[in-house]
Amino acid sequence: MAPHPFDPLSGEEIAAAIDVVKKQHGELLYQAVTLFEPRKAEMERWLANEVTAPRPARVADVTVIAQEGKVFDGLVDLASGKITSWTQLTGVQPIEIMKITMEELAIVEEKVRVDPRVIEQCEISGVSRDEMHKVYCDPWTIGHDARFGNNVRLQQALMYYRPNVDDCQYQFPLDFCPIYDSNKGEIIAIDVPKVRRPLRRDVKAINYHPEAVRQQSGGYRTDLRPINITQPEGVSFRLSGREIEWQNWKMHIGFNYREGIVLNNIRYDDRGNVRPIFYRMSLAEMVVPYGNPEHPHQRKHAFDLGEYGAGYLTNSLSLGCDCKGSIHYLDAEFPTRDGSIRHIKNAICIHEEDDGILFKHTDFRDDSSIVTRARKLIIQQVFTAANYEYAIQWTFHQDGTIQPNIKLTGILNTYIMNPGEDTHGWGTQVYPGVNAHNHQHLFCLRLHANVDGPQNTVFVSDTVASDAPVGSPENYYGNAFGVKRTKLATEGESRTDYDGARGRTWEICNTNNIHPYSGKPASYKLVSREIPGLLPKEGSLVWKRAAFARHAVQVTRYRDDELWPAGRHVPQTSGEPSHGITEWVGDGKTSIDNTDIVLWHTFGVTHIPSPEDFPIMPAEPMTLLLRPRNFFLNNPVMDVPPSFASTPSQIAANGRGVLDATDKVSQLAFEDKGSCCSGKQE
Amino acid sequence: MAPHPFDPLSGEEIAAAIDVVKKQHGELLYQAVTLFEPRKAEMERWLANEVTAPRPARVADVTVIAQEGKVFDGLVDLASGKITSWTQLTGVQPIEIMKITMEELAIVEEKVRVDPRVIEQCEISGVSRDEMHKVYCDPWTIGHDARFGNNVRLQQALMYYRPNVDDCQYQFPLDFCPIYDSNKGEIIAIDVPKVRRPLRRDVKAINYHPEAVRQQSGGYRTDLRPINITQPEGVSFRLSGREIEWQNWKMHIGFNYREGIVLNNIRYDDRGNVRPIFYRMSLAEMVVPYGNPEHPHQRKHAFDLGEYGAGYLTNSLSLGCDCKGSIHYLDAEFPTRDGSIRHIKNAICIHEEDDGILFKHTDFRDDSSIVTRARKLIIQQVFTAANYEYAIQWTFHQDGTIQPNIKLTGILNTYIMNPGEDTHGWGTQVYPGVNAHNHQHLFCLRLHANVDGPQNTVFVSDTVASDAPVGSPENYYGNAFGVKRTKLATEGESRTDYDGARGRTWEICNTNNIHPYSGKPASYKLVSREIPGLLPKEGSLVWKRAAFARHAVQVTRYRDDELWPAGRHVPQTSGEPSHGITEWVGDGKTSIDNTDIVLWHTFGVTHIPSPEDFPIMPAEPMTLLLRPRNFFLNNPVMDVPPSFASTPSQIAANGRGVLDATDKVSQLAFEDKGSCCSGKQE
Repeated sequence: MAPHPFDPLSGEEIAAAIDVVKKQHGELLYQAVTLFEPRKAEMERWLANEVTAPRPARVADVTVIAQEGKVFDGLVDLASGKITSWTQLTGVQPIEIMKITMEELAIVEEKVRVDPRVIEQCEISGVSRDEMHKVYCDPWTIGHDARFGNNVRLQQALMYYRPNVDDCQYQFPLDFCPIYDSNKGEIIAIDVPKVRRPLRRDVKAINYHPEAVRQQSGGYRTDLRPINITQPEGVSFRLSGREIEWQNWKMHIGFNYREGIVLNNIRYDDRGNVRPIFYRMSLAEMVVPYGNPEHPHQRKHAFDLGEYGAGYLTNSLSLGCDCKGSIHYLDAEFPTRDGSIRHIKNAICIHEEDDGILFKHTDFRDDSSIVTRARKLIIQQVFTAANYEYAIQWTFHQDGTIQPNIKLTGILNTYIMNPGEDTHGWGTQVYPGVNAHNHQHLFCLRLHANVDGPQNTVFVSDTVASDAPVGSPENYYGNAFGVKRTKLATEGESRTDYDGARGRTWEICNTNNIHPYSGKPASYKLVSREIPGLLPKEGSLVWKRAAFARHAVQVTRYRDDELWPAGRHVPQTSGEPSHGITEWVGDGKTSIDNTDIVLWHTFGVTHIPSPEDFPIMPAEPMTLLLRPRNFFLNNPVMDVPPSFASTPSQIAANGRGVLDATDKVSQLAFEDKGSCCSGKQE
Repeated sequence: MAPHPFDPLSGEEIAAAIDVVKKQHGELLYQAVTLFEPRKAEMERWLANEVTAPRPARVADVTVIAQEGKVFDGLVDLASGKITSWTQLTGVQPIEIMKITMEELAIVEEKVRVDPRVIEQCEISGVSRDEMHKVYCDPWTIGHDARFGNNVRLQQALMYYRPNVDDCQYQFPLDFCPIYDSNKGEIIAIDVPKVRRPLRRDVKAINYHPEAVRQQSGGYRTDLRPINITQPEGVSFRLSGREIEWQNWKMHIGFNYREGIVLNNIRYDDRGNVRPIFYRMSLAEMVVPYGNPEHPHQRKHAFDLGEYGAGYLTNSLSLGCDCKGSIHYLDAEFPTRDGSIRHIKNAICIHEEDDGILFKHTDFRDDSSIVTRARKLIIQQVFTAANYEYAIQWTFHQDGTIQPNIKLTGILNTYIMNPGEDTHGWGTQVYPGVNAHNHQHLFCLRLHANVDGPQNTVFVSDTVASDAPVGSPENYYGNAFGVKRTKLATEGESRTDYDGARGRTWEICNTNNIHPYSGKPASYKLVSREIPGLLPKEGSLVWKRAAFARHAVQVTRYRDDELWPAGRHVPQTSGEPSHGITEWVGDGKTSIDNTDIVLWHTFGVTHIPSPEDFPIMPAEPMTLLLRPRNFFLNNPVMDVPPSFASTPSQIAANGRGVLDATDKVSQLAFEDKGSCCSGKQE
């Protein structure tokens, strides 16, 4: 069966593309071989009529590094086996590949351990040369360092020590930072701080692995009883290829090296009318700036998607471990750097969860009532960005709400502290000798709007009191309030910030489709409350490189290939000029009124670390909502079967005539104990 | 066994108190008979030593209405059977009782149906006098109407019509509003709008009951497969009376007519050291102002707790319906107006839920990893305030986080619209002829702080960029950011608003307990993002009556009996003077620095209705977090058993030596289908 045009390239397709490139260009390092997404116009024609419209071609989008670090972008048409485009880029570095086996970043740790200047610095730090096997590094792309520019491909090696191979290395940072030139394959410089901070051998290791828990606290707690979740009749979703249908939702689940999960062609079957909502939805970029101003910490502002890739970094998930219940998995395939195929089993998990009360009402007159339980669908991946992990859950609700949820866990990025050293408020000593710097996690949600079709308009919407004073005829009692809606008419005007005190939301509207009752346009409302703003100042390196994060919302006219708002190739960009969204917006005069638009939303958290986050962070949740407003004729979930329903006439007729479909599997916690809550049976 | 001093009065105790009162004062109407909570000083002595300290006395706090509407507050000492206090109040109206059977508000509907002036207005509205059995009203306390003051006890009757007894009446509002004098037992006035709006007989009924769903959409959807949740080995919590222990948490679960669930003496067993966190936590008040300025809609600003009571309004919950899994219930008992006992079965439900990933980390070098799943404890009630329902979930996480969650569902308050009428933006036509006015749900969370003891201090905490400009020595790269903390030293200074753009939080600190690593005080941080502010203007009726809602946070010195921030008796207060928190704060000069304090936090949503909310609202979620920061020495959940763990040394030794405790009950969704995702088995 032919792949769906939105399907990621299969392993076979990737191999075929590499074959074509190899034949023409010889041995190369493959940084990316991914689906070149169908042009939207062509794709829309095909989606409208899959039988007669031409099927969009399968094209591989290839980025390679050749001899002497030369970078090429190319396109390979898979049907013809032809390279249709091949361009050398200058002053550009493509994405890093962090996976260890034979890949780019793994090499740095090997090089660091044998480099004489690194060994010298280790000795200065109090690590002897026969302990170099206990020295580790997390190689990060250098971000940007003006001393080196972007013609040479560089990694900065964040240095750590492990007294024991199983110790959490982030507890034992070293104070210097080697710079690795990956073209030359050698360490070209070492950043050494003015104030030296020798390895903290005075501090006892703290760890979270089983043996450490045994030693530190006498082992695991024994008072957690299992919770079992089962679906004996199967799940409520259906998959055809990568197209999923569930509770009126329909969409295609894509995946790429960069953004991880990409959801395309999201629709909702509204009583037989399949209505488009989003053409494409993904996390398109993120940045994690750290707030310590000392050199070289300003280089710590990872663009985890653009520099490393949420696909490349994704975990292989485990049943009953990352997810419970009845789970379906999708695998992923990527090229390795040397041109073979890496298969990631269980890259995506799909499952349902019970979601509590969907709606309930009781008439206080006669206790006639209805209770209906909710279900949600979760499409999840977890990716590891060196020390941190991100669990991304795309959650769909029956009522048309879409809820991206993110959990942050893993381990803090840390730096060493001398005894008694002052953090100056730029970080927290989370463990003796361990300074966890303040940082932000800023995610950029890319929403290619398609609310009842591609002619959409965005309004910013604030809830405000009436201007009329108390005692005036229009507002005599002073209680009048409503909505102030402002159309974002151009790309420039669309740069809008958050205003929590006004409950600010953004409405993606189809102004051509006015609700027959409310007189308001069909819309999806972005309700997002975690918008801390970019804290690095205007003109700072991060501000220049991460233009997407300067505002809570920016809206652009849709143009093919404008996918990633910090630019196509992010490592080592200087921000001068800023790539991605600033280039696209230009003078800001392009109209975004009633046309095909993309909304870019930056949200996240500012994380001021505390000792509770160490040595491993209990997951911190983050969420936002995309809610249908004036979209459905009325409540779209009235036909979800209730657990219980009784009407006044039934109550009057027999006191209890009811629809009783309550879950009979649920039980009383202490059923053998009679009515009194005298405690758990042992 | 003697009741715990925090236990609600039992039915027997309520009956005993009423007996004492009856003997001395004859027949009365009982508006409240509830636990007079132990004085804190006395209670603390007893908690410190339950064996030798005197046990706080059981005292009933009684509010009654006598002949001619006279109101009395009294105290009854249950051991001695003596009335120890009996005070007549003037200009005060106590709480309403909405339950139908023989109670206060039910009477209004009967009176309305036979009142000649109401019948006349019905006829003007197009309802004939032989249809009066189809006329319904939701009687609300009048709020405040300057024409009538507060010496006479009044209800406003929001009028509706039901073509059929099972129809949702909120679809058919009538346009006038009778005023009922409950002392006289008669309708004393009818508010009639200038513009008349006859009953919309042109509109077809829309309903959510099973027969309506059958007619409107051919019946219920059939594609939802059951999810079963079981705990075959029992639950992980233990109850002794109303004291619960779960995953290091310990607390007492109280309940009263006013606030519903009250959690007392919340502690966390930190490796053998049982540390106090909150002395008492509850929702203490709420207000739901509506934004339509036309008379008499300004009177719609229900104080659902102070005027009706989250306890009195609470639902009797059902296993497998309101809650799934292994559930434990607690009942509630209240007086009826005539002095007998009303028993509410299953007023509170307690259960655990799986909560996804608690923490996870994978070392990218060797894929050594740990995954630990989270559990949460939920203590829930659902109450019905006429048209609306509120599901209140007090959620406790293993890592010390407390998360109050609220779901709003039920039915919008509605008013009638003429065809083509303009809402002027104060509401939305959610169905033909149905105007749902803009409104806010503002909840006041009362936190009696006890973080490592009663000497606490509150700081407001903003995340801000460094003041130093880009290029300056202190902030050369412009990336410096940190926290600006401001101590709230007096009750007056504590009045603080939300600042979403600065990620504002409030920290409840024990400045006497400095963390050995971070140097910061032990604290619980209030992370709350849904703070729309009170939209009725300064000087408006709502602003005057609901002083608690004027700011996101206010802090007061603890004083016994300062429990309810809109005052003890809320119905018909004028706000002049404003009762409750404004009286307590006075000139604002009282120090709240390092002392026994109460934090009052107002949060909620502004609800601009849309047709999706009608005829019944899919639940809208709201949440906030109370997070331990610099409280625990380090991550407090490392001893939660992981689902899976492997260390680098195990991986090196045998490639997979692991702790594997993954849930074996979970299954693949399509296990019979081999590797491909070809769809659900039918």
